[in-house]
Amino acid sequence: MTDLSPTDRSTIRRGKARAVTDRAVLHRILDAGLVCHLAVVLDGAPLVLPTGYGRDGDTLYLHGSTGARSLREADEVCVAVTLLDGVVYSRSVFDHSMNYRSAVIHGRVRAVTEPEAKLHALRVLTEHLAPGSWDHARRPTDKELAATRVLGLDLTEAAVKVREGGPMDEDDDIAADAVWAGVLPITRQWGEPVPSPDLRGDHAVPEHVRRR
Amino acid sequence: MTDLSPTDRSTIRRGKARAVTDRAVLHRILDAGLVCHLAVVLDGAPLVLPTGYGRDGDTLYLHGSTGARSLREADEVCVAVTLLDGVVYSRSVFDHSMNYRSAVIHGRVRAVTEPEAKLHALRVLTEHLAPGSWDHARRPTDKELAATRVLGLDLTEAAVKVREGGPMDEDDDIAADAVWAGVLPITRQWGEPVPSPDLRGDHAVPEHVRRR
Repeated sequence: MTDLSPTDRSTIRRGKARAVTDRAVLHRILDAGLVCHLAVVLDGAPLVLPTGYGRDGDTLYLHGSTGARSLREADEVCVAVTLLDGVVYSRSVFDHSMNYRSAVIHGRVRAVTEPEAKLHALRVLTEHLAPGSWDHARRPTDKELAATRVLGLDLTEAAVKVREGGPMDEDDDIAADAVWAGVLPITRQWGEPVPSPDLRGDHAVPEHVRRR
Repeated sequence: MTDLSPTDRSTIRRGKARAVTDRAVLHRILDAGLVCHLAVVLDGAPLVLPTGYGRDGDTLYLHGSTGARSLREADEVCVAVTLLDGVVYSRSVFDHSMNYRSAVIHGRVRAVTEPEAKLHALRVLTEHLAPGSWDHARRPTDKELAATRVLGLDLTEAAVKVREGGPMDEDDDIAADAVWAGVLPITRQWGEPVPSPDLRGDHAVPEHVRRR
């Protein structure tokens, strides 16, 4: 377990108080998120797209269609996973903020093509998106595997920022005590499972979905 | 009101069935999101960071500290706003998916520096993050204004994708009817407001927070 932020660009300069250098926090943020935002440079311009991911140890896996240019030409990438925890209502507009947990990873991706390694990565990706589905649903065919591009990214160069707690108002604003200040928390909730209309038999919602 | 996707790079090729060309949908997605992911090219490499935003007509405003290099050197940018609506449990691992609403905007940012325009942009940004706060909280001082960099981005070149509804399984998998399939919805919920511990007087939670 090594600390984060070993390079210049992954060293947080803005809001240093919010920088976190514990690798376990990075892992927890990545495990709690559902999609990442993958940024690449395409034709000299930035491109950012939401995409699924999964983590195994200190490797992040990404996947998509072999036809997607953003994945096909990806080399140097930047990946962000952001969890929103609340809106911070401060006494001043200037000090309004959000509570969040954020991970930003820099690095070069490698294509995962060896069949066993690719299957393992897809298992990691599936179990991240839908825990329990790898053993429940039909596994990929060779044709489906061939149509999927899988990329691996080492979690070596990462920056983690966490903001939590209440408003950080100016002393004068706190003393004036003119208005309410506080935090409005945000949570992500799972709703009731909606069965597919084209189910034929009498299928109960499986435990791994019901208990999520 | 014009359609979206007027350029090569903002024309969706992967998952065309999910592409949306209605500008009103773009506006609704931007209005429903809380943070965007801003991608820039810095020293030749991609950088993506979560950041607040606000929309006024067909202008997106971004802001941050004048010290942030990502904002200071931003020119050509790509901005993504992603709303997650559910995990799609298909009969096959390959067809697992997410329900989402996604907007990706390309363009060159312009610095908003003229005082009246900057104040207007900050009002838009504040009211997006915390509706009601502009009239409730203390307005920015000249010093605070000077410490804030505001960027404007035209919503001209944008790509919108929406996936909704149930699994899209292969015919063979539907016929086999071997396992449950469906959607587990995701919703964002506001929690109970948490008053700042350093409030001195007896402040009720204001209506614009309580009713959010």
